[in-house]
Amino acid sequence: MATTKVHAYAAQDAASALAPFDISRREPGALDVEIEILYCGVCHSDLHQARDEWHNTIYPCVPGHEIVGRVTRTGPEVTKFQPGDLAAVGCMIDSCGSCENCQAGFEQYCLAFPTFTYNGEDKQLGGPTFGGYSTSIVVTEGFVLKVPASLDLAATAPLLCAGITTYSPLRHWKVGPGQKVGIVGLGGLGHMGVKFARAFGAHVVLFTTSPGKVEDGLRLGAHEVVVTREPGALAKHRGSFDFILDAVSAQHDINEYLTLLKLDGNLTLVGAPEEPLPVAAFNLLLPRRSFSGSAIGGIAETQEMLDFCAEHQIVSDIELIRIQQVNEAWDRLLKQDVRYRFVIDMASLKS
Amino acid sequence: MATTKVHAYAAQDAASALAPFDISRREPGALDVEIEILYCGVCHSDLHQARDEWHNTIYPCVPGHEIVGRVTRTGPEVTKFQPGDLAAVGCMIDSCGSCENCQAGFEQYCLAFPTFTYNGEDKQLGGPTFGGYSTSIVVTEGFVLKVPASLDLAATAPLLCAGITTYSPLRHWKVGPGQKVGIVGLGGLGHMGVKFARAFGAHVVLFTTSPGKVEDGLRLGAHEVVVTREPGALAKHRGSFDFILDAVSAQHDINEYLTLLKLDGNLTLVGAPEEPLPVAAFNLLLPRRSFSGSAIGGIAETQEMLDFCAEHQIVSDIELIRIQQVNEAWDRLLKQDVRYRFVIDMASLKS
Repeated sequence: MATTKVHAYAAQDAASALAPFDISRREPGALDVEIEILYCGVCHSDLHQARDEWHNTIYPCVPGHEIVGRVTRTGPEVTKFQPGDLAAVGCMIDSCGSCENCQAGFEQYCLAFPTFTYNGEDKQLGGPTFGGYSTSIVVTEGFVLKVPASLDLAATAPLLCAGITTYSPLRHWKVGPGQKVGIVGLGGLGHMGVKFARAFGAHVVLFTTSPGKVEDGLRLGAHEVVVTREPGALAKHRGSFDFILDAVSAQHDINEYLTLLKLDGNLTLVGAPEEPLPVAAFNLLLPRRSFSGSAIGGIAETQEMLDFCAEHQIVSDIELIRIQQVNEAWDRLLKQDVRYRFVIDMASLKS
Repeated sequence: MATTKVHAYAAQDAASALAPFDISRREPGALDVEIEILYCGVCHSDLHQARDEWHNTIYPCVPGHEIVGRVTRTGPEVTKFQPGDLAAVGCMIDSCGSCENCQAGFEQYCLAFPTFTYNGEDKQLGGPTFGGYSTSIVVTEGFVLKVPASLDLAATAPLLCAGITTYSPLRHWKVGPGQKVGIVGLGGLGHMGVKFARAFGAHVVLFTTSPGKVEDGLRLGAHEVVVTREPGALAKHRGSFDFILDAVSAQHDINEYLTLLKLDGNLTLVGAPEEPLPVAAFNLLLPRRSFSGSAIGGIAETQEMLDFCAEHQIVSDIELIRIQQVNEAWDRLLKQDVRYRFVIDMASLKS
């Protein structure tokens, strides 16, 4: 199969820093779109995967699944894109397309598993799929998103993971006016959760462990910010929430937040703490409450989100870096020293 | 306040067996219904409460919240009952009536807490409320249910707790034709869950640890019975259930059952294991699933259930006992040696 050499940054094993590495991309097939990557967001998953913290990494590993760029070439059967168009790619680049979940528009829950943008199985070239820490990517049209021209491109990149991961559950559980909605954690996901919940018309309460984030929380759209380490801070909200979006990946006590829900309230987890979370039965029984999870979103919903963001001028708050700074950025990410998403300017990889 | 002496069986402290004890019931007030208790079901909660296993028991303790009987007297403002009518009382005898949950018909989730049938606060006489292990009870009309004459009275008693506790979540989560529904545990609650899920038109799969209950499970209405201790028994059902009703009060691994749910499937707990249940985040995330709880049902829904039972000739499978056998019955309950609910013939307390 004909391929093109492409510059990238890769980890060669779990212990190594990211470093320059050339990869191959296939020549665009009939339904393929080739995209010059302009910006790629830095997701905490990139770090987990590159360092083999999920024990399933295939090396070399090129992370990155918050990709925006410009179409350079298209296959002859592509109908939705042409060279010069803005385009985006998120966490998936393919799925079976025929299972009941794919048919229902939930490609992220494909029963045969979606092909992830990196560390998936490259069905054309063999080996692992390579992500967006690279200068270009080739993806089948059905998994490429259109980027409205009115959006700031760099700040749009994180919408492809942090954005859709928070948008989807807030939509699924019908968050809207008249509802009291909590967002737990002000990081890459949480800050998008605050923006969306506010845009959907809810009364938004941000829960954070950091007193230093109160001002930011309010600026981003929260009506109230609760610093959870203050004694009694949670108790006065007991039984009052319709919905809580929990965007914390570290271990934390879910029961504290379950008790904040009113009858038929729902707490949805979008982070994935490593160890199981103990849930006290009575917190789900009295009154009737639900504890759920949600992962990214389907392709149609991701497009809907991008269009919604254009209409409401919602993007991520970002810190733009050069690819040469990515290892340092990862170190800062581990210290939660980012407001609120690093985005790599991929021009730095070409120069 | 005028009272009547009534025979009962009570525990005088956490360590004592139940023994005869006379209690006082108020004379019926304007809105009160006095009921001669004919049958009272034996719920595991009775034992937990009498033995102070929830650390909140007020003694003497007269258990019993699955009560059916006949109206003997009514207050002058009572409109729905008259002497001679069949009547029933479940887990609650009052609630605030004005909070949003009461207003919505969810008296069991009253924000000021419902008054429970036993070990509640008796607002007229002071001290604890006394339950159905007694010859009569006086309850405000709004918390008294009508019992359709076509139902077997003794076998109807368990519907007031075991019945409504399983009926309510199956209705709330809209269990019906075309759905695959699991019932975990074949005890007092589980056997009602099987009957209701079958009556609602679902494909019903019973999960039990006991090979000896397979035949009963099928007889009660399950289409399939899975003996969970058989290796690989659960694995072949992975990702296939719309809804699972978990009626197990003992500690058990919820994760095993969460993985059996399909996209947007829900597992609802109606038992209340003592220790928190560890939940692995990925089991809720991939695919999107929910873990919920549910407690009994509101008064209107309890009446709806009794009417449904009359229409479909559904009652509990019971073993009728005399009150003098109740301590022995409790011992057998602890050994799960009951198919599937003990019911006390209260005539035995009068003789």
